[in-house]
Order: sequence, then C-alpha cells, then structure tokens
Amino acid sequence: MVSDEAMPGGTRARIRCDILGQGAFTEMQGGLFRPWLGPAYRATVEQVGGWMVQAGMTWRIDAAGNVVGRYEGTQDNAPSLLIGSHLDSVHDGGRYDGVLGVMLGIEVVAHFHALDVRFPFALEVIGFGDEEGSRFPVSMLTSQAVAGRLTEIDPTLRDRAGQSVAQAMSAFGLDAARIADAARKPGETLGYLEAHIEQGPVLEAEGRALGVVSGIVAQKRFEITIEGIAGHAGTMAMALRHDALVAAAEAILAIERIGRGGAEDLVATVGRMAVLPGATNVVSGRVVMSLDVRAALAADRDEAAQAIGAELAAIAARRGVTIGLAEMQALAASPCDPVVTRALSNAVARVTGAPARHLASGAGHDAMVMADLAPTAMLFLRCRGGVSHNPAEAVLDADVDIALAAMVAFVETFAPVCPASTPWKNLPEGTPA
Amino acid sequence: MVSDEAMPGGTRARIRCDILGQGAFTEMQGGLFRPWLGPAYRATVEQVGGWMVQAGMTWRIDAAGNVVGRYEGTQDNAPSLLIGSHLDSVHDGGRYDGVLGVMLGIEVVAHFHALDVRFPFALEVIGFGDEEGSRFPVSMLTSQAVAGRLTEIDPTLRDRAGQSVAQAMSAFGLDAARIADAARKPGETLGYLEAHIEQGPVLEAEGRALGVVSGIVAQKRFEITIEGIAGHAGTMAMALRHDALVAAAEAILAIERIGRGGAEDLVATVGRMAVLPGATNVVSGRVVMSLDVRAALAADRDEAAQAIGAELAAIAARRGVTIGLAEMQALAASPCDPVVTRALSNAVARVTGAPARHLASGAGHDAMVMADLAPTAMLFLRCRGGVSHNPAEAVLDADVDIALAAMVAFVETFAPVCPASTPWKNLPEGTPA
Repeated sequence: MVSDEAMPGGTRARIRCDILGQGAFTEMQGGLFRPWLGPAYRATVEQVGGWMVQAGMTWRIDAAGNVVGRYEGTQDNAPSLLIGSHLDSVHDGGRYDGVLGVMLGIEVVAHFHALDVRFPFALEVIGFGDEEGSRFPVSMLTSQAVAGRLTEIDPTLRDRAGQSVAQAMSAFGLDAARIADAARKPGETLGYLEAHIEQGPVLEAEGRALGVVSGIVAQKRFEITIEGIAGHAGTMAMALRHDALVAAAEAILAIERIGRGGAEDLVATVGRMAVLPGATNVVSGRVVMSLDVRAALAADRDEAAQAIGAELAAIAARRGVTIGLAEMQALAASPCDPVVTRALSNAVARVTGAPARHLASGAGHDAMVMADLAPTAMLFLRCRGGVSHNPAEAVLDADVDIALAAMVAFVETFAPVCPASTPWKNLPEGTPA
Repeated sequence: MVSDEAMPGGTRARIRCDILGQGAFTEMQGGLFRPWLGPAYRATVEQVGGWMVQAGMTWRIDAAGNVVGRYEGTQDNAPSLLIGSHLDSVHDGGRYDGVLGVMLGIEVVAHFHALDVRFPFALEVIGFGDEEGSRFPVSMLTSQAVAGRLTEIDPTLRDRAGQSVAQAMSAFGLDAARIADAARKPGETLGYLEAHIEQGPVLEAEGRALGVVSGIVAQKRFEITIEGIAGHAGTMAMALRHDALVAAAEAILAIERIGRGGAEDLVATVGRMAVLPGATNVVSGRVVMSLDVRAALAADRDEAAQAIGAELAAIAARRGVTIGLAEMQALAASPCDPVVTRALSNAVARVTGAPARHLASGAGHDAMVMADLAPTAMLFLRCRGGVSHNPAEAVLDADVDIALAAMVAFVETFAPVCPASTPWKNLPEGTPA
C-alpha cells in the first residue's frame, strides 16, 4: 500500500474509511457488510491496529473483541481520555457510519504524536465490535461490556448461521465466559468522546459542518393493529366498507401531522406495515403497523403519543373499525455530560468561528452506553442528504478536517471532570440503534 | 344418508351445500377448500351426479371435468337451456359461493320432473370445475372450455405442488389434449342461467332477497409504485422527509374519495401493499401497491382512473416523491343478454310481487364467459353481511326458496331467443374473479 503518512489528517481518515469499505474488509460482494467477529471484522481489526501503531500507539484486542490503541501520557498508566466509535456495519451499509469516528481518534493521536505532545492523561482510541447488532439480534454488546454492564451473554442469541455468541467469540479466539474482563475500572477512564456522521439532514440543511450532541432522544415503540371487515373488492360498495387499510392511511397522516406539529426534535414514524389478506381484489380486513416516536424530552414524546392515541380512537369510531395501540418498548432520554459537552462546544466554536449547533441524536450510539462509565460528549459531522445505512453515505473532506481540528482543540483543553450528572440507569440491555 | 326427497327445494339446496362443505368434500381440516380435480372435487362430482339422477337427469363428466346433468325435452336431443354455476371453492371459503347455483339448477329440474313436465328444449345443469382459479393461477378455465374459448392449456401453469394442468387432468382420468371436446356447439345451447350469492351487501342493505344482474362490471388493475427517500426514523427530521408510506397514505385516501364520489356502482380499492425497507426504525423509501377500479360502465371506470392518476401526480409533486401508475389489466364490461335478462326480471317480479332490482356484478362469474356461447342471465341471492370467500358466508332458506320459484317461473316462460347482442370478444383468457 502507498504510504499515506504525508496526507492531511481529515482526508486520510476519510480515505481509510474507503479502504475499509471493500476487499478483505467486507463480507459482501459489491458492498459493505462487516458483522462483529467475522472474517472481514478480523481483517479490519488487524488493519486498524497497524494504523494505531503508525500513529504512535500500542494496540490490543480486548475481551469483547474491540480494538484498543493507547498513547501514554506524561506518566505511564495514567487514566485515559477515550475516543472512539464502532467498526461493524449493517448489511449493505455506508463507509463512514462508525468507522469515521475511529479513524478520527487515530488522527487525533497522530497529530499529537507528530508534535511529540503528551498530556497528564493517556489517550486511548477504541473501535467497538458490535454497535449495529448486525450479527446477533441485539446491539451495542461490546460497549456494554466495556461499560461493565454485560456480565453474561444470553445463550439463546443466534446469528443467521445458527451460531451462538460464545461460538462466534471462540472462533475469533475469545472466551465468552470472560467477556466481563472487557469492563474498564471506574476512574481509569476520564471521559469518552465519539465522532459520528449525523445520519440525518439537519446540519446539511443549515449549511453546517459540525454539531454537538445534546443527548440521545427518548423513544417509544408501539404496534398499531386495525381490524376492519375484509370483502370482495368488486362487490363491496364503497359506502358500506370498513376498510382497515384506508383507516391505516388516515392514521398515518394523523401521525405525520402530530409529528410535525410538536417539538422541533419530535419524530413520529410508521415504517413497518402488514396488510391482510393482501390481495388485489380484496378489501383489507386487518393492518398491523409499527409506530416509533422520539423526542429529546420524554414529555414531548409522551404528549405526541397521547395525541396519536386520541386520533386513532376518533378514526376507529368514524370508520367502524377497531384500532389497538400497544406499547412495545420505552427508552429514557440519555443526555450527554454537560461539562464535557460544554468543552466540546467551545472547541467547535473556536475552530468554526461560530457558536456550536446543539442537536439531539435521534439514533442510539455507543456513547449512550459509555455514559454509564464516564462523562461523555459526542460530535456530529454533516453527511450528504442525511443518508446512512446505505452505500450512498458520503462526507466532505473539509468537514472531516474541521472535525479533526475540533477534536484536537477539545483534547488540548480537556481536564478531568467529575460530573454532577447521574449515570443513566434506565436503559435496558439490547438498546436498539 | 337420510332421504331428503320430501324437503322443500330451497331448503334442500341449502342443506346440500352444507353437506358439500365438510367431510370428503373438502381438502381442508375444519374448513372448506375444494380445488379443481382434487380428491374433494372427485367426491363432490360423484355426489352431485347422484343428486342429478335423483332429480330425473342423466349425468356425465365432460372433457374439462365439469359435471353435466341432462333432462330431456319433449323430443330427445333437443337444444338445451343450461343452468349452473361452479363447484370449486377458494381456500377456507364459504359453502354457498358457486355450489348453491348448481344445487338450485338441480332443484329446478327436480320440480319439473316431479310434475312430469317437459319442454320443447332440454334442461341441462352444469357444475363448473374451475371458476375461482383456486388450483392454478388462472380462473374460469372450465367455462372457457365449454364456451369454446380454450383450445390449449398453457403448459407452464403449475399448482402449489408443482403439477401441470395436464398432470392434474390425467390423475382425474382426463386428457388435457382433448379439453376442446368440452366445447358446446353453437345452437345446441339456447341460453345460460346462473344463480349465485351476491358477494356484496347491496341486497341485504335494501332488504331484498333477489337481484337481477345487469352485467359484469368493467375492471382495470394497476400497480402503483411510490419512490421516496428512506432514512433513519430517529434522525430524519419530519420537515425534511420524503416518506413513501405517508405519500401512499394520501394516495389511498384520495382513491377512496374518488371511488365514493363517482357512479353508484364504482369501486376503487387498494388491497395489496409492500412497504420497503419495512423496519420500525426506518422511514419508508418505497411502496408498491395494487389498485383495482371497477364500474358498470367503462367510461365511469376510466374517468375514476384518470382522476386517481391526476391526484397521484399532485401528491408526488407536493411531497417530492415519484409515483408511477402502471396499468396491469383491463377487462371490458360484460352486459348480460337483454332479452333473457328481461325474462328473468319478469319472473322475479312475478314471484316477489315487486319490480326486480337490477345491479351490476362487481365480481367475475362463469356467466361472463358463457355469454360467448349463448344469451345469458344471472340471478343474485342476498348473502349475510355481503360476506363471501369466508366460512361466515350465509344465506336464508326463505331466499333460496324464492330464488328457486323465480328460476322455475323463468323456465316456464323461457323461449329460445336469438339475441341482437354481440358476444363479448374483449375478454382475455384467465379472467380473474
């Protein structure tokens, strides 16, 4: 491979993401798929380890299969500031979701290493193995292990090939019984910084390169079941119908209207839908669909959910159908640490020359899990069209450069804090992305 | 079996339908499923043949597997008036759809046989084997064969077990190469009368037992494809979405509005829908759905389809999505023969004491195929809740009795006609129900 040592750091980070999007680093022909502990993940871990060494770090694979690089401080074995994100990808995913944050962490260290600068704390870079849940039907297993929240693994979990987590770990050279060894001791981690593409269109719409995450939104998931009366599409007169799909259509528009009318960060989505019996010539008797409601504040989320419930009841009464709304999952909001986040905002303001834009993250991230371990801040980079989990995912080199500059500035002013904020105890295991 | 010879004809016809809804006459545990040429169909053919003999007929299985009973006229080998419907059923279907028309045909003959009345024409009763397309992915194969429209069978057609039509026919003792032998010669059939449950709620809503079918509606089927932009349900702000499913919801409501606002007999239905990628936490990027539009007059149907197309274009423009509307199938309207239908209307008026209610049939029937062969009339019986293709299908004995009386009155006044109406040339093969 041609040496990339002379490149600007942001460009190099982006190019390394592109390298990791193909060849031995993916399990998918013509696209990117990198599940935890698979052969592509193995090749990626080795490559990332090599880049860590090039940036002046030592590196290791922890008990959960994460890659960890370490750049010592002015004294050996000092507690560390941890910078990272995840290395796994969804099926046919993009090249920057997760990986870019790890590459930026390496560039931060490379920057200080080139200047021979060391701090009273160590710098560590982590590439998490499982954020997406792309191999097993749970997500963020590996940051849960690092945060000390994962002491044993559900033995019933299976990947598509029928392998258990223990079998997959064993094939990788790890011991599932020792996954708790990945847990970091309290006090050995001073803070956690994660850079990630926004996965949304807000920064692009506002012409900004960067955003500072105020927190991860509160979320509720529901299942909506509509029971109408099925009938022959040719013989059942329009006026006499109780069409479950038409009632669902009214519900979807009401949900959009309520989602648009609430808090700025409120979103309400129907994304999954089954129409029964589902034949061209049959009026629908039954529709089952999902509802996902999120907002930075749980109160905004719950107000929207209540308004939706009232609207569904009105539709049911008007159309002579029954509509059930069952809550499937509730996730509390997870604010970022205010002190560390203020430091990151200041760094962003310094490099961009404008006050930082704060925005809530609508998606889950390792940062919400790491908040259990250490004060956490999170930086968003603009991504083209707000697109993620898609081969069309794209970032601008200039944005990656300015993100790197902000992260460097953050580290330069970083001082260990003992935040007043409470760890977030309300998150169930297996938190979805 | 207890003798049913002493029963009123309508009640007996209904009870015989119930008998044919269970035991050896169905292939489905706890429900009715009787596909063409299967073991349940074989048992049904034999049972129906026995009842035909009891009613004074000779019977045979024709080259397409239909059951045909014959009651000679005052002279042997006279041309016949044909009365019938179909014996096959959809999966988990009702007991009266089709079968009741065959049982009523037998009762008509039994009535005249008991009085020893014969006409200058023969009476024939036919039970068609395949109207529903419940075994192979085409429908009305057997009436097409009788009408002389089926000269060879598509060799690529397969049932769910992978059998071809030729294999299924051979297992039944028939030769697919000779299916054209089922065709009746022009002139040997003077008319075709079919009685069938309405499969719709109009007669029930108006408190009528019977309706006379004015014709089978004109139909068009479309596929609607909506392309929006998929995105993360947590990160894509409401105002920036191009959600394919929300656009589909608007389209469905517009289709309902147009369907309600047009001709009285106009119906417009979205019954099948696929939402992609179809995950709880993903804004939909693509929706593919069916559209079925029917009306007695092709002009009403086409006006509605055009209005829907215009509405879809407006939705696409407003929401920044693309919407395609592809016509998949067009079926011309198939009016019943005016002369024979008038005779049936007169018979209905005589037995009910009120002018006959004329209504278009929204569903396809063997009668629309048989119209190629002979002047055709069709009688609808009220069914409970308008329900068909469902175990809940139900009829009233009193309605079946009055239907029988009307059919008897029709036969008594039937005179061969040479209708001015043209055979319907526009129907493609494999006409859906």
